[in-house]
Amino acid sequence: METEKRLEKQLRFILEADKSKQVFRQTYLSDGSRKENDAEHSWHLALMCALLSEYATESIDVAKTMVMVLIHDIIEIDAGDTYAYDEQGNVTKREREVKAADRLFGLLPEDQESYFRRLWEEFEEGETPEAKFAAALDKVQPVLLNDASGGRSWKEHQVRVSQILARQQKTPEGSEKLWEHAKALIEKNTKLGRIEDDR
Amino acid sequence: METEKRLEKQLRFILEADKSKQVFRQTYLSDGSRKENDAEHSWHLALMCALLSEYATESIDVAKTMVMVLIHDIIEIDAGDTYAYDEQGNVTKREREVKAADRLFGLLPEDQESYFRRLWEEFEEGETPEAKFAAALDKVQPVLLNDASGGRSWKEHQVRVSQILARQQKTPEGSEKLWEHAKALIEKNTKLGRIEDDR
Repeated sequence: METEKRLEKQLRFILEADKSKQVFRQTYLSDGSRKENDAEHSWHLALMCALLSEYATESIDVAKTMVMVLIHDIIEIDAGDTYAYDEQGNVTKREREVKAADRLFGLLPEDQESYFRRLWEEFEEGETPEAKFAAALDKVQPVLLNDASGGRSWKEHQVRVSQILARQQKTPEGSEKLWEHAKALIEKNTKLGRIEDDR
Repeated sequence: METEKRLEKQLRFILEADKSKQVFRQTYLSDGSRKENDAEHSWHLALMCALLSEYATESIDVAKTMVMVLIHDIIEIDAGDTYAYDEQGNVTKREREVKAADRLFGLLPEDQESYFRRLWEEFEEGETPEAKFAAALDKVQPVLLNDASGGRSWKEHQVRVSQILARQQKTPEGSEKLWEHAKALIEKNTKLGRIEDDR
């Protein structure tokens, strides 16, 4: 009976999480055909985590980081995706996201609620090696896609290079190597006029 | 120099893998609004793996199983998704998929090529506890989505219950508990006439 209830809660969360496939980000797929959603983005980060952990600035627990990236955006089912360069949206972001975490992770059995909640908070705080590497992946992946799609999302939002560099400030703490690569792509795209050069 | 080449190969694969977001399956999202793609499906399985490993029939290495489900459909970028109940398509499936694995995993540095290749072959062979549990998730997740969407994909393809049960034959080897749940949903949907009862 207890097992039944437990499984029911877990499956309720798993079905609710399906809605991540409908939360669209500002980044386009590499071929520019449409925007990427949170489920796809999280899958891509987990794949990157499995392949690129050797470049983490500090040694990381790969499995833990994979679960972290798999769930880091689930709260956006309720809170919505806040575009990185939307200054107004970013003021109310934390409040909206905490409320979302309460409801969404609250669907799970208690032990798994606190497991996911703690992982999500750790990601948000960005202090541990895992959180830093996860954040680096989360920042580098859109640069890869944006570069591949001809800078489509940068151009659409007329993003300035100073904004991107400010947002990427902590990326080297997660991975110097990946930052080096992303930085080169940012410079290339700035030279090409896809990113506004305001320096 | 060697590191540069290595990272270049890894990122080449990661960008190629982006195409998984364009490979559509026959299953609809839980709200029935559109079909699910491979990246979303794989993300969903990895999430289920993180939450449901306690129901694995044999004890599993969760991290290994997560990577297995994250990559199990990447070969469909070249080989396409073969619908479970497409008998003709399933005849040529293996050949198409091996060719795809050669090209896609071949983009990676050698050590990671054989890491992913071995994991994919292990999934295909379905003999280890991890492969059995991964296969169970891969079979149970569409049942959850199909049930949630009112049996949309079953009805569209006029699927017969004998076909579903044949396909689910090995699910209890991965997880008896999840199979028990899936079976109840299949029975419910058969009674509702969303699955053709040919028994």
